[in-house]
Amino acid sequence: MTTVGVLLESEGRERRVALTPDGAARLRKQDVEVLVEAGAGRRAWFEDVGYADAGCVVVPRGQVYADSDVLLCLRPPGDLASARPGQVLVGLLGPLGDPALAQSLAAAGLTAISLDLLPRTLSRAQSMDALTSQANVAGYKAALLAAEAYPGFFPMLMTAAGTTRPAQVLVLGAGVAGLQAIATARRLGAQVTGYDVRDAARADLASTGAAVLELSTPRAEAEGGYARELTAGEAEAQLRGMAGAVPRFDVVITTAQVPGGRPPLLVTAAALAGMRPGSVVIDLASTAEGGNVEGSIPDTRTVTTEGVTVIGAANLASTVPGAASTAYGRNVLALLAMLMPHGEVVLDLDDEILSAVTVSHGGRVVHPRVRALLDDSKEIHS
Amino acid sequence: MTTVGVLLESEGRERRVALTPDGAARLRKQDVEVLVEAGAGRRAWFEDVGYADAGCVVVPRGQVYADSDVLLCLRPPGDLASARPGQVLVGLLGPLGDPALAQSLAAAGLTAISLDLLPRTLSRAQSMDALTSQANVAGYKAALLAAEAYPGFFPMLMTAAGTTRPAQVLVLGAGVAGLQAIATARRLGAQVTGYDVRDAARADLASTGAAVLELSTPRAEAEGGYARELTAGEAEAQLRGMAGAVPRFDVVITTAQVPGGRPPLLVTAAALAGMRPGSVVIDLASTAEGGNVEGSIPDTRTVTTEGVTVIGAANLASTVPGAASTAYGRNVLALLAMLMPHGEVVLDLDDEILSAVTVSHGGRVVHPRVRALLDDSKEIHS
Repeated sequence: MTTVGVLLESEGRERRVALTPDGAARLRKQDVEVLVEAGAGRRAWFEDVGYADAGCVVVPRGQVYADSDVLLCLRPPGDLASARPGQVLVGLLGPLGDPALAQSLAAAGLTAISLDLLPRTLSRAQSMDALTSQANVAGYKAALLAAEAYPGFFPMLMTAAGTTRPAQVLVLGAGVAGLQAIATARRLGAQVTGYDVRDAARADLASTGAAVLELSTPRAEAEGGYARELTAGEAEAQLRGMAGAVPRFDVVITTAQVPGGRPPLLVTAAALAGMRPGSVVIDLASTAEGGNVEGSIPDTRTVTTEGVTVIGAANLASTVPGAASTAYGRNVLALLAMLMPHGEVVLDLDDEILSAVTVSHGGRVVHPRVRALLDDSKEIHS
Repeated sequence: MTTVGVLLESEGRERRVALTPDGAARLRKQDVEVLVEAGAGRRAWFEDVGYADAGCVVVPRGQVYADSDVLLCLRPPGDLASARPGQVLVGLLGPLGDPALAQSLAAAGLTAISLDLLPRTLSRAQSMDALTSQANVAGYKAALLAAEAYPGFFPMLMTAAGTTRPAQVLVLGAGVAGLQAIATARRLGAQVTGYDVRDAARADLASTGAAVLELSTPRAEAEGGYARELTAGEAEAQLRGMAGAVPRFDVVITTAQVPGGRPPLLVTAAALAGMRPGSVVIDLASTAEGGNVEGSIPDTRTVTTEGVTVIGAANLASTVPGAASTAYGRNVLALLAMLMPHGEVVLDLDDEILSAVTVSHGGRVVHPRVRALLDDSKEIHS
């Protein structure tokens, strides 16, 4: 019988868990053994007793490593040395951003499967699309966070003493996170405007009922539905246009990503300086190396000298841990259904999806793009 | 010419200001001089320069006291000794909860006008109804705070990997705050149930589209649209019924007040213990002497051993300071229009509204109910 193990996330601020008790119960029905590390779900309010009630065995971390055929996580565990060669590890491992990790996974003999490598345009892959499910949660929370930090009302309110105008919200980037932020801000009654460099995304924007911000910058579609990186001249023009537009808004939520690259700068310090005191800017692309908003710091709330609150919101999905874990667990179950069609692991590397998401296998990094990145860095260092 | 002065609130956590630059501009149009204490609006993001642009003079606190005919505040200032006899002070002074303050106001020679004494059922008074305008803001923020703290989604979401059920929200007390909390939670897509002991309020509940929780407790209407205090037996039955109902919900928002009395206990520790881990309870009636929820602490977030987050939300209006100050300022302007019909203060104590809101005048406490409270306490202490 196959055994699936659920690890407690190593990163202390990460509140999600890779499988909920409900998800575990579905595996149990298929006669899969489920080991859960003690406390794995606690930060998401899934208590050990809930897993036990679902038919799981709650054990210490060492035993999860020792006795599991398949290990489930979100971020890569900090103690890969505990893994056994031949074990399968499923997570959001981010090997394109950290190719050295892929080497460690291979060296540990793990068959590492990373859901962020999923070919998102295949309809068969949609139920496994963890980037989408987590971006959906992040976009929802971004709108809530903005409403919470904004000193006025989002909706228009009419009272005996007068009427207040609705908040003007601008959402940059109309991917999953951006569209969900738009939907949530609109639910709250704000007047929402969206912006994206991709033609298809502008059509999505219009379909939400949001207004569309038009800047005199070119379209920039790339493969797989992502945006391509703009040329220096295009980016410069975009920044100028944005600096003119941003001060008209009370709230700006930025969600623009370029796969494998640094997030584009969209809102400069000069644009922030033009906003009214009390305005709120949420940067979902905030990283230590910079985000969409100049000066945003991950997981930190800063206030500019002009009175604009800038929130670097690096991992918002983790702050809605119940919803995010439930959605992620469903993605994992959909993957396991393909990986273990008859209850046993069968890694079919001829399958379009499985070959796309497998990072390492049999002691080698097998993912072509990750290998190319490793080869590049070898050349640089040799 | 009459001079109106705007004070910086003495309580450091209070972020509201009694008049916004827009409100001040309306007074200036009527040739009223407006003095604003430096920094008075800053915590609500109304900068001194905004007041100056509106035609106000920004001055130190001492000069506001020295040169104003009418002083505007929310909570009673901490330095009443700085006031001049004959000055008018307008605020939310709460003399029924603190009759000793009324004596201090009289001793300072102030004509003190407290908007919380407004006869709320008079339609002429509605535009001055600061309790309503601030409760409206508090109810809005309560729903946002609940959504922010709740680990799941408020709305039902359908994705490729499955559907999540909407959050079940219970709102206790269908006054202004409760109804606005219901409206906001419903905007966010939650399934909302309301409860109130008053028949009229149950009708209001039904009109919002919320479900109505029925307990086998009697109706309890009192004067002025408020609820009366329940008898011990009635309260006991209500607590039992509530303990049975509360665990069915993911989020509970409590807003029940009894005027002049302690807020009723509605959610016991036993009821909290029955809720699922991750549930959220927001107590808008939280005070140092207790609130609607057992164990709630004002301005504090606690988590029970069962994993229920309890938020004591004593002064939520202050946390949406822009909207709250704008609304309060409009209430104050409506009062001033009556108090200064031709630009000069004329205190007509024969007017139904002005007589109801005036606490002290000519060195004496003139409000009958406040005087009765003072007489009672004299008898107790003699």
